[in-house]
Amino acid sequence: MHTTVQLQQILETAIKNLKFPASPQQLYDPITYIINLGGKRIRPLLVLMATELFGEDANESINAAMAVEVFHNFTLIHDDIMDNAPLRRGKATVHEKWSTNIAILSGDVMMVEANKNLAKVNSIFLKDVLDTFNATAQGVCEGQQLDMEFEERNDVSIEEYINMIRLKTAVLLGGALKLGAIIGNASEKDADLIYQFGENIGIAFQLQDDILDVYADPEKFGKQVGGDIIANKKTFLLLKAFELAEGQNLEELEVWTKLTDFSINEKVETITQIYNNLNIRNIAKETMDAYLSKALNLLNQVNVNDEAKKDLLTLTNQLMNRQY
Amino acid sequence: MHTTVQLQQILETAIKNLKFPASPQQLYDPITYIINLGGKRIRPLLVLMATELFGEDANESINAAMAVEVFHNFTLIHDDIMDNAPLRRGKATVHEKWSTNIAILSGDVMMVEANKNLAKVNSIFLKDVLDTFNATAQGVCEGQQLDMEFEERNDVSIEEYINMIRLKTAVLLGGALKLGAIIGNASEKDADLIYQFGENIGIAFQLQDDILDVYADPEKFGKQVGGDIIANKKTFLLLKAFELAEGQNLEELEVWTKLTDFSINEKVETITQIYNNLNIRNIAKETMDAYLSKALNLLNQVNVNDEAKKDLLTLTNQLMNRQY
Repeated sequence: MHTTVQLQQILETAIKNLKFPASPQQLYDPITYIINLGGKRIRPLLVLMATELFGEDANESINAAMAVEVFHNFTLIHDDIMDNAPLRRGKATVHEKWSTNIAILSGDVMMVEANKNLAKVNSIFLKDVLDTFNATAQGVCEGQQLDMEFEERNDVSIEEYINMIRLKTAVLLGGALKLGAIIGNASEKDADLIYQFGENIGIAFQLQDDILDVYADPEKFGKQVGGDIIANKKTFLLLKAFELAEGQNLEELEVWTKLTDFSINEKVETITQIYNNLNIRNIAKETMDAYLSKALNLLNQVNVNDEAKKDLLTLTNQLMNRQY
Repeated sequence: MHTTVQLQQILETAIKNLKFPASPQQLYDPITYIINLGGKRIRPLLVLMATELFGEDANESINAAMAVEVFHNFTLIHDDIMDNAPLRRGKATVHEKWSTNIAILSGDVMMVEANKNLAKVNSIFLKDVLDTFNATAQGVCEGQQLDMEFEERNDVSIEEYINMIRLKTAVLLGGALKLGAIIGNASEKDADLIYQFGENIGIAFQLQDDILDVYADPEKFGKQVGGDIIANKKTFLLLKAFELAEGQNLEELEVWTKLTDFSINEKVETITQIYNNLNIRNIAKETMDAYLSKALNLLNQVNVNDEAKKDLLTLTNQLMNRQY
């Protein structure tokens, strides 16, 4: 068994050892580039932690962890094209630095690289691992599709929103944990429980992101506070505000989300004030807490001793206590 | 054992039975659309034929055949975005009919669907099948990248060109045959021979395409004769012409490939005349025949009786005797 810090070291070494062909250089350079932009490596860490949760060595699932990390980075490249994003972690996105065509194709070949890593998994688990990985990858694509569709719609319900973030971000956390559990030789029941744990944690994380976008400490937050408000992003907060607002609050929401020319600070202040009027922060926090609590209840049912669950709980708490 | 016509019926039924989720509709509709645009289904047919070549029933490899067909259609969607192509088989391309974003994402989820089909393969063969499929998919991506790079270069050699078409089109034929062979329980040596057969046939097919683009019967050819000439596509013919041309031929080649405003018919006639002056058609045909002959020699070495090879030979001959 390894500590979380040790698992992170195993991951960093494995990521450093990921080898891609030297040519065509323009196809493979973006892969090295995006992977080395960093990130918290939460998803591959969850793979390893789940394997150790069930008493097997994390090195057994390192290839699955790499598959998850490479896949995740592939989705970032393609999402950035679709979202027309200029920056990723403060650096130029792949389509900006190279071209859209190269970003499409490098992404495609990353998906293949992810699958190559997956194929290295112990053949006893291979079929289960593939099924879990493919179902996860499919969910992520569906989530991105819904996210794009929601941009064009004005009738997105909270329920639809939760389902979208479940697919777009939470299933990959669930999938990562389930992959690790399968390789850790978990029972089917436990593998499903840990998957559900991950999905619920993932939804809680995204709700926390929605809250932090508005209420984070600007000194610590890595990006502009209110970015979602400026972009009219249909977050839990905005959807809930539209659901609850009446009279002047509703009128102002409608005016400000339709304006094309506005003072950024004034828009952020006004919408934040409407959120405050409607108690949106607390409602979002209660919803987030409900998913967190559901997740913890599911983890509690996993049939291993509490000691083995400690690191996963600590990680969850750390991630849920971000102030930025 | 099945006749080729029977195998084609098995394929059509399996393609009709491919089921994709109903929603999000905009994500999955393009998949049904592109797959139903038709095509000769050569690649999945090769999977089935290779399995039967080694004495196993084609139904054993139908899932691998579907994986190959879905993967191939995925590459068409993404290639069409990159090539900015408005039409595919006479119909609007996915990015034209829907949008570039949807074409990117539908393509991505098709790759997942291909992998889902692949995961259904008998688990005895799964690891080998995955390795072969992933190596093939990687080659196809590399080929597309080289193809894009060649558009920007003026120093592409014939050797580089052959390597590009090998990757872009031939490895998938080789890969399809090898997948079928693996599932047909072929020896490693035979699986490699049939792979090499497919790769060489694939190069011969592409050279034939290059020749037909200029010399096909316009009455029978599905598209404009001389399309490659109009677009300055760096085919075997153009590269060879630049290699051999001197004096006036070289001068005219350079002038016509640089013109941005020109009469289409005059350009096609002039460049075709230069090809004729330089004997390019015969040189291309000799090169094509050399790959074909190499392929047949490889097939000859496959350790099964001649009777079993008959259908594959007939198909090869049919495909190599296209006049359009």
